[in-house]
Amino acid sequence: MARVYNFNAGPAALPLPVLEKAQAEMLEFGSSGMSVMELSHRSKDFAGIIEAAEANVRELMGAGDDYAVLFLQGGASLQFAMIPANLRRDGKSADYVDTGSWAGKAIKEAKVTGAVNVAWSGKDESYMRAPAQSDLKLSDDAEYVHICSNETIGGIRFPEFPKTKAPLVADMSSEIMSREVDVSKFGMIYAGAQKNIGPSGLALVIIRKELIERCPDTVNVIMRYKTQADDGSLYNTPNTWGIYILKLVTDWVKSLGGIAAIQKINEDKAQTLYGQLDSSDFWKPCADRASRSIMNVVWRLPSEELEEAFVAEAKKAGFVGLKGHRSVGGIRASIYNAVSKAAIDALVSFMREFEAKNG
Amino acid sequence: MARVYNFNAGPAALPLPVLEKAQAEMLEFGSSGMSVMELSHRSKDFAGIIEAAEANVRELMGAGDDYAVLFLQGGASLQFAMIPANLRRDGKSADYVDTGSWAGKAIKEAKVTGAVNVAWSGKDESYMRAPAQSDLKLSDDAEYVHICSNETIGGIRFPEFPKTKAPLVADMSSEIMSREVDVSKFGMIYAGAQKNIGPSGLALVIIRKELIERCPDTVNVIMRYKTQADDGSLYNTPNTWGIYILKLVTDWVKSLGGIAAIQKINEDKAQTLYGQLDSSDFWKPCADRASRSIMNVVWRLPSEELEEAFVAEAKKAGFVGLKGHRSVGGIRASIYNAVSKAAIDALVSFMREFEAKNG
Repeated sequence: MARVYNFNAGPAALPLPVLEKAQAEMLEFGSSGMSVMELSHRSKDFAGIIEAAEANVRELMGAGDDYAVLFLQGGASLQFAMIPANLRRDGKSADYVDTGSWAGKAIKEAKVTGAVNVAWSGKDESYMRAPAQSDLKLSDDAEYVHICSNETIGGIRFPEFPKTKAPLVADMSSEIMSREVDVSKFGMIYAGAQKNIGPSGLALVIIRKELIERCPDTVNVIMRYKTQADDGSLYNTPNTWGIYILKLVTDWVKSLGGIAAIQKINEDKAQTLYGQLDSSDFWKPCADRASRSIMNVVWRLPSEELEEAFVAEAKKAGFVGLKGHRSVGGIRASIYNAVSKAAIDALVSFMREFEAKNG
Repeated sequence: MARVYNFNAGPAALPLPVLEKAQAEMLEFGSSGMSVMELSHRSKDFAGIIEAAEANVRELMGAGDDYAVLFLQGGASLQFAMIPANLRRDGKSADYVDTGSWAGKAIKEAKVTGAVNVAWSGKDESYMRAPAQSDLKLSDDAEYVHICSNETIGGIRFPEFPKTKAPLVADMSSEIMSREVDVSKFGMIYAGAQKNIGPSGLALVIIRKELIERCPDTVNVIMRYKTQADDGSLYNTPNTWGIYILKLVTDWVKSLGGIAAIQKINEDKAQTLYGQLDSSDFWKPCADRASRSIMNVVWRLPSEELEEAFVAEAKKAGFVGLKGHRSVGGIRASIYNAVSKAAIDALVSFMREFEAKNG
């Protein structure tokens, strides 16, 4: 047995040093005499973990004291419900930008409970690009503007973020901590952890503190950001294991030099893979060039038969997770922070061999 | 270093064989070439895990095809909001039995969004017992009757469950799979996993399928039981690691002979500890005898100074988690399934020495 090259879209590859540390500490964490999973969430040992995790997030992302950093459950999908419940006051509306599958799910949830203005939709262009500033039809009185900054399925991202009067709220699940972001430009950034920063079952929320106060008391206590912000994410028992792994992952990001350093590695990885895709007509990258994601790279081959053969042969050669999402087909390589340049180089070598045989 | 005796209230002790297996499989699960945390939730490998987890729950609990078994996030605390959202239709009311801290939290959340009838409260008796059938003032038209079957903080349980016309909904977080229960008598059973069946960040819901249909479409999609029931708990990415550990824990319960067998062990453990508490006036067990929990054993000592000394000396001797909840003080030993009879015997020996020195 050996570890494979893991291109899963999420849950996804984790850094090997993180797994090795979790393995070494499995039976006894520090001097606690127990596993992290057996620690009380109110113990000193766990306080050390969650405080370090929060400090890492603040340091890496540059989130100041005017932002709360929350570790929640339910993934980005629960955020799709919590955001309008907390930030869109009675009778008001919010702007949403429809860039694809995940933006669409956020819109669907927001519409269940109130008014939504879709400020732009890429649907008629098959979601192959992010909008330009001039494309957006923002409302004057929107409570917030919601974007999905990187679409995992379509493989597109916002090269630059929209400028908005209302607070900008961004689902960054598939690109959090992969590139430098100016947090102060956002009202809220959130992410399911299972792509770039940890295991599934954990959501990271970074929210400007003044926005937390908006929530009406007709919203369930557990659904209010204020509840968790007032209690350091310990109003109820959090996903302690998930927070521990996130702490280890962010330690690892710091050890590489932080987000600026990992962004360079990510750009190099993406350039290598897109370079191969641009090298001949055999490969058909899907996203518009300016909107290409550096985390999720999506492409087609000349036929569905060749796509199936590619995925099957790749799997035999130790490359896992390359099948495109069932809703769009084709090939997708998710090349998150924990996917090494060596994995990309190996994949590109495999692609060249495949093209030579089938091109 | 060595593993301690862990009496934490939750997150709590896990079976050592479970931790050892998770440790052994950390870098490569089966032939997947990756950690469980890196598996796609839609992969064959993870399907094997979640299907086995569900089969174990059904087999151990005796839950038939008329019940859905769901693996959710947000703990019991999110259930406090989801239950009324799904089961209490517009303008209707639900009955709640107030047996202590956790029942109280469920009542608080239910009141945020609609009408609640408190069918009985133990508040005036300091929550030292569960109600008898004759105590309950149930409504004729209640949508459901909610109980917390075992109060972690007060250390009481229902020796027998209420008979109700409306579906009975039970928070069993701190006693799930510790004693035999006739699931067919319940509309819904739910539990945060972090006490008896796994790590935190995972909630188990067993719900009669006909009840799932009640939910109005004004409730967010992610908050509907139907959403997850229709999608095998995979509408969004679940806590995959939590489900994996729950699968290992339920494998372990089966290896011991199932719930009937573990109930006998639990009753023996509880009898040993309560026997010590009943042996002299030095120990002052709190719960009424008939309502004594066999999972959470709560007692006082002659003074708060002695209680502090007891907790401190116990910790030095390798017994962790014995401090009572901050809201009630005193001593609490949580003796869940994974706490061995040997741990109880060791604790009782320590208690005898402590009494001899301080009694």
